[in-house]
Amino acid sequence: MDTDEFRKFGKIAIDYLANYLDTIRQRTVLPDVEPGYLQKCLPESAPQTGEHWSEIFAELEKFVVPGLTHWHSPSFHAYIPTANSFAGIVGELMMAGIGGITTTWDSNPASVELELKMMDWLVKMLNLPEHFLNTSDGMGGGCIQNSASESTLLALQTAKRRLMDLSKEDTLGQKLVAYTSDQSNSSVEKAALLASIVIRLLPTDTNGCLRGEVLKKSINEDKEKGFVPCCVIATFGTTGICSFDNVEELAEICRSESIWLHIDAAYAGTALVCPEYRYLMRGIDKVDSFNFNPHKWMRVNSDCSALWFKDTTYVEKLTSCEKVGSNPDDIPNIHLWQIPNCRRFRALKLWFVLRIQGVEGLRAHVRKQVGLANYFVELVKSDERFEVCTSNLGVITFRLKGPDGPTKLLLDKIREGRKIFVMPYCHLNKFMIRFVVCSSFTEKPDIDNSWRHIEDLANNIEYSKEEYINPVLRTASMKDEIRRRN
Amino acid sequence: MDTDEFRKFGKIAIDYLANYLDTIRQRTVLPDVEPGYLQKCLPESAPQTGEHWSEIFAELEKFVVPGLTHWHSPSFHAYIPTANSFAGIVGELMMAGIGGITTTWDSNPASVELELKMMDWLVKMLNLPEHFLNTSDGMGGGCIQNSASESTLLALQTAKRRLMDLSKEDTLGQKLVAYTSDQSNSSVEKAALLASIVIRLLPTDTNGCLRGEVLKKSINEDKEKGFVPCCVIATFGTTGICSFDNVEELAEICRSESIWLHIDAAYAGTALVCPEYRYLMRGIDKVDSFNFNPHKWMRVNSDCSALWFKDTTYVEKLTSCEKVGSNPDDIPNIHLWQIPNCRRFRALKLWFVLRIQGVEGLRAHVRKQVGLANYFVELVKSDERFEVCTSNLGVITFRLKGPDGPTKLLLDKIREGRKIFVMPYCHLNKFMIRFVVCSSFTEKPDIDNSWRHIEDLANNIEYSKEEYINPVLRTASMKDEIRRRN
Repeated sequence: MDTDEFRKFGKIAIDYLANYLDTIRQRTVLPDVEPGYLQKCLPESAPQTGEHWSEIFAELEKFVVPGLTHWHSPSFHAYIPTANSFAGIVGELMMAGIGGITTTWDSNPASVELELKMMDWLVKMLNLPEHFLNTSDGMGGGCIQNSASESTLLALQTAKRRLMDLSKEDTLGQKLVAYTSDQSNSSVEKAALLASIVIRLLPTDTNGCLRGEVLKKSINEDKEKGFVPCCVIATFGTTGICSFDNVEELAEICRSESIWLHIDAAYAGTALVCPEYRYLMRGIDKVDSFNFNPHKWMRVNSDCSALWFKDTTYVEKLTSCEKVGSNPDDIPNIHLWQIPNCRRFRALKLWFVLRIQGVEGLRAHVRKQVGLANYFVELVKSDERFEVCTSNLGVITFRLKGPDGPTKLLLDKIREGRKIFVMPYCHLNKFMIRFVVCSSFTEKPDIDNSWRHIEDLANNIEYSKEEYINPVLRTASMKDEIRRRN
Repeated sequence: MDTDEFRKFGKIAIDYLANYLDTIRQRTVLPDVEPGYLQKCLPESAPQTGEHWSEIFAELEKFVVPGLTHWHSPSFHAYIPTANSFAGIVGELMMAGIGGITTTWDSNPASVELELKMMDWLVKMLNLPEHFLNTSDGMGGGCIQNSASESTLLALQTAKRRLMDLSKEDTLGQKLVAYTSDQSNSSVEKAALLASIVIRLLPTDTNGCLRGEVLKKSINEDKEKGFVPCCVIATFGTTGICSFDNVEELAEICRSESIWLHIDAAYAGTALVCPEYRYLMRGIDKVDSFNFNPHKWMRVNSDCSALWFKDTTYVEKLTSCEKVGSNPDDIPNIHLWQIPNCRRFRALKLWFVLRIQGVEGLRAHVRKQVGLANYFVELVKSDERFEVCTSNLGVITFRLKGPDGPTKLLLDKIREGRKIFVMPYCHLNKFMIRFVVCSSFTEKPDIDNSWRHIEDLANNIEYSKEEYINPVLRTASMKDEIRRRN
């Protein structure tokens, strides 16, 4: 293929995507396919000789798209928003086309420097502590990671390395313990498994918030048993109900116990672009590392996860080895602040989005999504059969009043219909439906449609009296369902 | 921005990239910028209000591109090839536009199934053992990772988990030791640091190959000291001189000692698409995990790293936790075979490349690059001042005959000129220049140009007699140089 052919191919792709996104409302959000459907459609082996690109678009529409979950459909209310914007799409295209990867500054100066600058722009936009700036006098700084999972893993391993350095004890590694809340994302538990650190999933209060006294109690118990507290991973906006741990209380304890405090703000971190949400982040000046994903709510297409360290000394100690080079003076060694050796030119994508959206554009996006969520809350409240359980920053849980049975049946009906995608959630021993405003294409009529669909199905629920009276009857299978869907 | 505007924006980006790649030969491969140059050009903060996309292209060309290393320039002969193809670029664009991410099958059925299928296509294309097929009867299988770094880390941690499971000893973690060669990539050492496992960088033979007897000796020494051998990371195509460890010998020892054997074939794995290179891979049926990067030599733009396990039981044990769901029967849990929780739809990009290139197209690409490298070898040999030190699969080292001084001066001149990008290398106590055919745009006249440039500079080298006689004089600074450039 030459560049003339690439021009045609690329422009057809742009048109395909424009059409796909223009018509996304007309596609059923959840696919109607059986496990293994695609295995049967596609050939067993790669073609021997190359095919023309035009053939691929036909098969994409015929075989692949029918099996897609349409994550950017306004009827997608599951998980948490996954960013998308035209600026992000074109940014990703430009990254791929310019290509190349980056290790040290020498390998790609503009890539390293744009990343340093973009991370500083984010610090200022979110009003994060100045010691996170790459241009700060101290040892703080940040760079782009692939995911919050990797950011948490890196924070845990850095915390471990720091303690191992401080201690003379050879067997310390066996005794390290980390803490997070029972509401934290599964990636935190997975990171602890990967870092070979015991993790405690501590109980939260009725608001889903991890409080200082709970942490303190657990630390004391562990110390009595001979464990060595190493790291606390607090969540700023949990995946379940978007609850917020009390960072100020946790930070105080971490400081007095010399424990690393990492904040996972994967989704809700973006809200800090709006001054009205910054009160949620009290204590952030005391945390050791902070991570949020512009690829969730900040319109930067995946992947783009931002991680800062208050002091990068320990992560550099963790990852420095004989064969890895260093940057010129005054250029931070961001290649040492990550798990892989190389990085894509993700700063370019971030630059595209931040410039095309602007700070006000991103604020408007957050406020619009929260506004739509609040509108949904009003709709739920207007139907007296329902109750709203929680509503935080675009993440809502609600249920039919009374025992769990009817809500479970309603969720089954919703999932069978495939017209909207919502998730189950259990909190305070109640079964709920979890509804999130995810797509950036969502408008008020979309919320009306989703709610009307839920109400219609609720009108037609038939459930046996037994099930109504004995709400635990279906609990086992629903637990499986929750696990399977998460 | 609406979709009409996106169509314009996206198509301008396609044209920009077509022009960039069409004119890449006219750009000096290495940028002429000082550290910190971009920090001074760009504003201190993100813009308050959004800007029009057309403004970005102007600043991209004005500020960013002058600081880029042009990785796809035919004058780029450093590191190792980083894949690029029009199919890969458009594939990346389509991934971004369709968007969404994937965890379990439920979250995105087509994404999971296309990945399973593409990994099986790769197994067949490379003639890898059938037990790696996702459709095999056993527990083997593979999925796409972000990087070889992460693949190595995951293999190491899986090996660790396996031994911890087999042992009853609590303090085992402190005694684990892994082995790799002194020629392996720095990411292996970094992975060991991250996995808290001691690593031995074992000496290789004169061909840069790790042999069984060296491994055996080191294992015995470690066992006597009370260490527990856990994992061997063998390299199939080292970064330095593209040497190949003796997998058959290493596999025999690993089997008898019950040690995990991982293969890092990041670059050279792609060569297995050509039957004539498969002899290099004797013993592969006995390895526990195998990784290569289609994003290096297989024309799939970064990132796309393929990792297979002979038995996925241990990696699933490593990463499974309470909150993570599982797939329907018959669909492997590939979300448990990776560090992060979520994955991008990279299978789509791989599908685009494999279909548009076809197996024969990829074979032709490998053969063309190797052919161009061999042509360069002939050019070097035709000048009697020079000697070729090594030449393996597109990776060449050469030097001026005699002591190191002149070669060091020549490299300095080449780097100062910025017209071609080559790296230093030290092997068997000799200083060499490392030359790789990286860009897929490279043609014979490009090789001629690069060689003519080197010869011209060699003609003009002035070096003091002292330096010629005492080749170690500049060694210290060149070691720093090698470290800095790697």
